[in-house]
Amino acid sequence: MEKGRIEGLDKIFNPRSIALIGATNNKRKVGYDLVRNLKNYKGDLYLINKKEKEIDDMPSYRTVLDVQDDIDLAIITIPAHGVYEVLDECGQKGICGAVIISAGFSEVGDVLSEQGLSELSNKYGIRIIGPNSVGMTNNVKGLNATFTLNSKRGDIAFLSQSGALGAAIIYKTVYEDIGFSKFVSLGNMIDIDFCTLLEYLSGDPETNSIAMYMEGINDGKRFINIAKKCSEKKPIIVLKSGRSMSGSRATASHTGSMAGSDKVYDAAFKQAGVLRADTIDSLLDYAKVFSQTRMEGNRVAVLTNAGGPGILATDECERCGLIVPELGKNTQDRLRKILSPYASVRNPIDTIAQVDYNQYLKCVEILQDDEDIDAILSVIVVPTFAKIGMNSHARAIVDGWDNKTPIVTCFMSGEMATSSIRYMLINKIPSYPAPERAASAMGALWKYSKWYDGHFGKMQDQSY
Amino acid sequence: MEKGRIEGLDKIFNPRSIALIGATNNKRKVGYDLVRNLKNYKGDLYLINKKEKEIDDMPSYRTVLDVQDDIDLAIITIPAHGVYEVLDECGQKGICGAVIISAGFSEVGDVLSEQGLSELSNKYGIRIIGPNSVGMTNNVKGLNATFTLNSKRGDIAFLSQSGALGAAIIYKTVYEDIGFSKFVSLGNMIDIDFCTLLEYLSGDPETNSIAMYMEGINDGKRFINIAKKCSEKKPIIVLKSGRSMSGSRATASHTGSMAGSDKVYDAAFKQAGVLRADTIDSLLDYAKVFSQTRMEGNRVAVLTNAGGPGILATDECERCGLIVPELGKNTQDRLRKILSPYASVRNPIDTIAQVDYNQYLKCVEILQDDEDIDAILSVIVVPTFAKIGMNSHARAIVDGWDNKTPIVTCFMSGEMATSSIRYMLINKIPSYPAPERAASAMGALWKYSKWYDGHFGKMQDQSY
Repeated sequence: MEKGRIEGLDKIFNPRSIALIGATNNKRKVGYDLVRNLKNYKGDLYLINKKEKEIDDMPSYRTVLDVQDDIDLAIITIPAHGVYEVLDECGQKGICGAVIISAGFSEVGDVLSEQGLSELSNKYGIRIIGPNSVGMTNNVKGLNATFTLNSKRGDIAFLSQSGALGAAIIYKTVYEDIGFSKFVSLGNMIDIDFCTLLEYLSGDPETNSIAMYMEGINDGKRFINIAKKCSEKKPIIVLKSGRSMSGSRATASHTGSMAGSDKVYDAAFKQAGVLRADTIDSLLDYAKVFSQTRMEGNRVAVLTNAGGPGILATDECERCGLIVPELGKNTQDRLRKILSPYASVRNPIDTIAQVDYNQYLKCVEILQDDEDIDAILSVIVVPTFAKIGMNSHARAIVDGWDNKTPIVTCFMSGEMATSSIRYMLINKIPSYPAPERAASAMGALWKYSKWYDGHFGKMQDQSY
Repeated sequence: MEKGRIEGLDKIFNPRSIALIGATNNKRKVGYDLVRNLKNYKGDLYLINKKEKEIDDMPSYRTVLDVQDDIDLAIITIPAHGVYEVLDECGQKGICGAVIISAGFSEVGDVLSEQGLSELSNKYGIRIIGPNSVGMTNNVKGLNATFTLNSKRGDIAFLSQSGALGAAIIYKTVYEDIGFSKFVSLGNMIDIDFCTLLEYLSGDPETNSIAMYMEGINDGKRFINIAKKCSEKKPIIVLKSGRSMSGSRATASHTGSMAGSDKVYDAAFKQAGVLRADTIDSLLDYAKVFSQTRMEGNRVAVLTNAGGPGILATDECERCGLIVPELGKNTQDRLRKILSPYASVRNPIDTIAQVDYNQYLKCVEILQDDEDIDAILSVIVVPTFAKIGMNSHARAIVDGWDNKTPIVTCFMSGEMATSSIRYMLINKIPSYPAPERAASAMGALWKYSKWYDGHFGKMQDQSY
């Protein structure tokens, strides 16, 4: 079977029926968590267990062969030594997709057993995620085939080569209001790998950007080709670990990946238009920014109600290849007319704290009118002490925005900023808790826009 | 009056009596917030207002001259044009410290009025914070002389040249459980500046480390001298904005500071042992790490229950000048004896998710025994799915720690990590939400330790 083909993947992500092999009443096993997580699944669910007759008040089957109806997807969570047999049964039953959660294969040195699974995958044409996977989700369908928390629904696809990191990030994103379209814990990647998923996700209308945690890949050329084709449709952001000497030694022992020289990865990512993030936070920060259209240029207006944070944003903009130019006379004059005489209208535009809804809204409009400005970065210290409505800036941004000019926001002040941040979320405007992070995310937007334009030449349609 | 002398500062931070000039019943004015914030103050409080006779059920005085008793500190929050007169009255009354919150001086171009205040400061020997300050706090004394939120009590002194940024950071730290010993919003610094405060804080037993947001200073030589002397006693961390061209243009207009070349600042900080942070988060991350003793060397053991996050921490360690060496045979053998056969004992030490309290505690002890390891970085994905007590690792760290070996922790999984993180806080072990941030903070600890040892030669006492 040619790797990279995405046939069968749709049955994994959108199955009409699922068999959970290893379903159990035993709360100490992950098979129990999967039963619980699959309760929201709308299709037919068959619970498979060789011994238990009834699980969570549902009937249970000894094997998939005992099920009369067709099954699209098998989720396998029994101990490693039994996986070959049940996967063989899946093949006989004509099941075309499997998520193997069971661990104890090549990651602990048992390469032979893993090869056995590969052979079955080839023999029957079963597409496999795993083994040693935390599972996968399709949030659009309410399908959580993992033994961890439901992630929130959103338009970022998240792929992780480390299951624990994937799970930790899901917990984090639920807490931080970041949503995923799909999540895949890739595990040992005996069949479905980053390339397969990029190819599939590039055509997934529910996915706007793709975030991946990667330890290593084995076929660099194939990755570059497929990633480049995907980047032409939607942005990919990667957090690649193993940059350091000791880190790459650990990568090899963790997922058995060829870590390779970090420079080689760097070059490959650049060529393929893949954005590289340095931290978990920036991986998600960058993925989020693509609710905005591509930038036509790198000239940013930093609009702030507090000098210091505006300067920090400006510093980071320049570090990321953006420029924060002095505004033209016309724009300066227009801003001066509506703002306090103590405001600074050069750029960063410091409205000072005493700015109200109407003034802030007009600022947004004036900056959008300026043809020498490509994007707006709004940094707001939520005015807890300025005797001004706490969410007035958030409302002004939403009401003033032309839904066209790329805009990124930062609302500071801890918990006081929560409702403004949520208002941004509802209106699909990216928002960050620190000015540097907002600027850095805009830098990623610009980097991708530049790659895209260099690749295709400037185009009219700026949406994804 | 010679600048840099710290005489009078103690009366500002530990006043026996305070006059609030501009106290008011008008909720739309900051004078009202100050009345409210000063309610926790234990000393004598005199409210001064030319018109209002009674404020918040307390008697009010027309001027400080109408008060019979001695006053240590005046807090001034009336409009700019009246400040000269009331400051003069403060001088006549023999008040030796003033926090001038009133804005509208050099920051909006009125240099002359500001010079008037300086002259009064010199004439009467009144020490002044501000003008254009958000105020200051001494949390040990329950003194909040600002118009913003009470910060939490802790052992970091926080100095901010931007009032709004200072206030935003206070809100953030309250939310994130970071505590301050003192907070000072420096404002226009007509008298008390960074140097004065560093000199004072270097002798403050309540302050363990000093975090500052700086836009610019005017006397570099003096700063280097004083900062170096302070660094000999406790670490200073600075977030200096205006690194970029546009940023430094903005700095000049925001606080009128000479931004100077960033390289000059960088060199000055290095010479003085001042650690430079790049972001608001790292400013606080670094300041927090100094609850640990200095590192005697840069060899770090990364102890983790999840491969991916451990590798990310390792990468960042190396980027920060730390090394994550393979462990010696003896330590590897000891670890192998207690851990799962699937664990990796090389370094990073990946215990895998199925590790219990006893195993984790022994890991900490074994690593502390290893003379080739200088510090421990523990990265934990809170085991939401591993059927293991959620806080078992946190307890194991506290119980296994020798209270000597520098240790830094990271607990991942959003809200699920909250109780572990709080347990670290109670036990004064620094904790971070992301592995890269924990590693970077340990890098700062090492950087300071190295500067310290280079400065003094290796010394016995590793505490501050």
